[in-house]
Amino acid sequence: MLTQEIRNSLDIADLNQLKYNLNCLQPVDVGEYISQLPEKQRAIAFRLLNKDQAIDVFEYLPTEVQEELINSLHDAQVVHLVEEMSPDERAELFDELPAGVVKRLLQQLSPEQRQATSTILGYPEGTAGRVMTTEYVRLRRGLTVGEALSKIRLQDEDKETIYYAYVTDDNRTLVSVVSLRQLLFTFPDVLIKDIASPHVVKVRTETPQEEVARIMQRYDLIAMPVVDREDRLVGIITIDDVVDILEEEATEDIQKLAGVSGDEEALSPAHITIRKRLPWLLGIMGLYIGAASAIAPFQQVIAAVPVLAVIMPIFSNTGGTVGIQALTVTIRSLGVGEVTPGDTAKILRKELLAGLGTALALGMTMIALSLIWAKPQERWVALIAGAVMATNTMVAVTLGTLLPMGLKRWKLDPALMSGPLVTTMLDTIGFLTFLSMISLALNVFHLQT
Amino acid sequence: MLTQEIRNSLDIADLNQLKYNLNCLQPVDVGEYISQLPEKQRAIAFRLLNKDQAIDVFEYLPTEVQEELINSLHDAQVVHLVEEMSPDERAELFDELPAGVVKRLLQQLSPEQRQATSTILGYPEGTAGRVMTTEYVRLRRGLTVGEALSKIRLQDEDKETIYYAYVTDDNRTLVSVVSLRQLLFTFPDVLIKDIASPHVVKVRTETPQEEVARIMQRYDLIAMPVVDREDRLVGIITIDDVVDILEEEATEDIQKLAGVSGDEEALSPAHITIRKRLPWLLGIMGLYIGAASAIAPFQQVIAAVPVLAVIMPIFSNTGGTVGIQALTVTIRSLGVGEVTPGDTAKILRKELLAGLGTALALGMTMIALSLIWAKPQERWVALIAGAVMATNTMVAVTLGTLLPMGLKRWKLDPALMSGPLVTTMLDTIGFLTFLSMISLALNVFHLQT
Repeated sequence: MLTQEIRNSLDIADLNQLKYNLNCLQPVDVGEYISQLPEKQRAIAFRLLNKDQAIDVFEYLPTEVQEELINSLHDAQVVHLVEEMSPDERAELFDELPAGVVKRLLQQLSPEQRQATSTILGYPEGTAGRVMTTEYVRLRRGLTVGEALSKIRLQDEDKETIYYAYVTDDNRTLVSVVSLRQLLFTFPDVLIKDIASPHVVKVRTETPQEEVARIMQRYDLIAMPVVDREDRLVGIITIDDVVDILEEEATEDIQKLAGVSGDEEALSPAHITIRKRLPWLLGIMGLYIGAASAIAPFQQVIAAVPVLAVIMPIFSNTGGTVGIQALTVTIRSLGVGEVTPGDTAKILRKELLAGLGTALALGMTMIALSLIWAKPQERWVALIAGAVMATNTMVAVTLGTLLPMGLKRWKLDPALMSGPLVTTMLDTIGFLTFLSMISLALNVFHLQT
Repeated sequence: MLTQEIRNSLDIADLNQLKYNLNCLQPVDVGEYISQLPEKQRAIAFRLLNKDQAIDVFEYLPTEVQEELINSLHDAQVVHLVEEMSPDERAELFDELPAGVVKRLLQQLSPEQRQATSTILGYPEGTAGRVMTTEYVRLRRGLTVGEALSKIRLQDEDKETIYYAYVTDDNRTLVSVVSLRQLLFTFPDVLIKDIASPHVVKVRTETPQEEVARIMQRYDLIAMPVVDREDRLVGIITIDDVVDILEEEATEDIQKLAGVSGDEEALSPAHITIRKRLPWLLGIMGLYIGAASAIAPFQQVIAAVPVLAVIMPIFSNTGGTVGIQALTVTIRSLGVGEVTPGDTAKILRKELLAGLGTALALGMTMIALSLIWAKPQERWVALIAGAVMATNTMVAVTLGTLLPMGLKRWKLDPALMSGPLVTTMLDTIGFLTFLSMISLALNVFHLQT
């Protein structure tokens, strides 16, 4: 968000001062300022930017605003802006623009940039190929350190990162990597191949973006090469993209757990909100027919012992929470790669152990709470409620652990097992056990109320 | 996690081969391999590493294993390892070690490293001062580009990043920043002060780490300077720490929403699991006395219309899910900085709009479901259930939005408003409304069942 200080320095009424300020500020701040302006003023503000600042700011604008500017600026200006975008950002923009506009813009790009964009757009969404950039520093094996540094100096200043250089053979096959740091700390006449490391951490174009992000995080890389099936270097992925990917993935995990289909934003329009949430709600209501059906046959029991209706929601809410706790910890640990399905037995053992302690505590609390409402002759109900609360706790930690682990083992998204699904299952099991036992007590042991 | 390929290459039975492999692999992989070994073999494997690899690997070991090695290696070796750690990693280790060991190690460190560690440990946990490193490149204003590059070449090769250099005046006050890239692309006789940018994005030592991470993400920085109250440069924060901070924050948000007090791991020992979850469970059971008390006075109503006990759990589960959906989207949007409390009205408006559509759909579904179990003379119950489901939906989106926004406005952690708290409130309101209306229908309008 823009700080108040920046906001105060920007006033669309004083164009001269605004022009000065807009050209001093960080591009991301200017981008946010322009996006917040009313539609008509956006192009005015954007035209105040000098050439380099305009190029930088353009990349930070939301796609809708980019599209708007493309329609309102001169053609030559548009082509220049789009030509200067980094290929990955451009691919993202083209993905959203109408096909006609993309075709027209592509024709006006330089052959290299057209090629770069088409390459990236050729890979499926969510893969390394789609998020990589084709601007990187490539060196031949035979160079010396001094030659390499001169070559880097001659590169286009716009390469996204020059902090790693990738060494390839004549077929563009990736053979090693050398950091700018190594180059600077080595005598100029040393051969690149003597200092470059052949142990290159790399990914294939089809590697899913989450995996790319995890690998770069694990090895503390600020850039990582992407190769094709023949091990030829085709691009690099930079750390700024990784940060965004990890954040996206976390948001998806959080939202799915709550029964929202990924990446809704607080300010998404209402119809998007409905589309992302309502199917889950209806689905869960449908599944809940199971839990309600578990209660239905016992209506006479409840009529005879109405305190049951007071007690049942307590263990439904608590049991659901126990299940969601275990589910959330498991899904997040899978998500950040702390554990794998191979750890299932180990995790289940510890969950059951912790569950035992929890079951004891919750069971006793349940008895205490039930006694608040149970009439003297109904006290035996409290004991059964406590026992069912305890067993339901054990069932909850078991389901909360095994369900996501199972999905992960079958190569499905563990976060598909959302919280409401688990609470629905737990309610069904809990109500059935509780009411069966109460019924048994009433009919077989002839306990009275 | 270690790939199978790496795992296969490592066999503790063949020490010569193992030594060769361990010295070729990435330090993080070796660290993981050593941590997974039985305790007795860890020191053996670690001693196979050559000097540089040992230093690198040591930083990647979990604190328990670091501590174990400190106790089992020779003193001189330990001092060397600890001396060569980066100051921020060392501070993290010292934080966990027994005070006696820290005191002994501190005494054996070089004066500079001792100073660096004490500085970092002097800042409170979770602040910029605590996660920064004191190893960075500092330049005086008067230097030329050529002199600056020579100075960088003479630096200790261990500086965490050399990709930005920070320019200070005689009082160490931060005045500008220059990237290595700029230095490489400029003629050697140009003065630093002519190319360095005075618009430095920086944070203060006391800035919370989440904010640090958000700022670096926003401005796409791979390092950011940390200054004290007098604007003097005291350290830098690097992007690898930011990635870890963002991940930690996301985990905390996810777990708090589920009623787990932050950062539990799937493999945390059972007593930690109990400590992080049980207080929430007991607290929620305690609060649920409210919801149960809302039902208690209506026991006779339920005895008279036992289908209520079948229907009530459906709208409790669904209403809770609606609330958690809104809560989750709001908390996550606040967490990633997409929205601020200033957007409350805008978000509430859209939630209510989406809520209306949802309320209609859920209300009608509720009627349909209730009719499954309602006897012919109880059909009016279905209508009331539908109406209450609809109003409860509106209450749910309102609470799910306003509660976290309110906490944020009062500078509290919005994620304190966990899912189970919201479902508990919604149940209380929902049961009370539903049963009051049924009771009204029975007693005032004399509807029959």
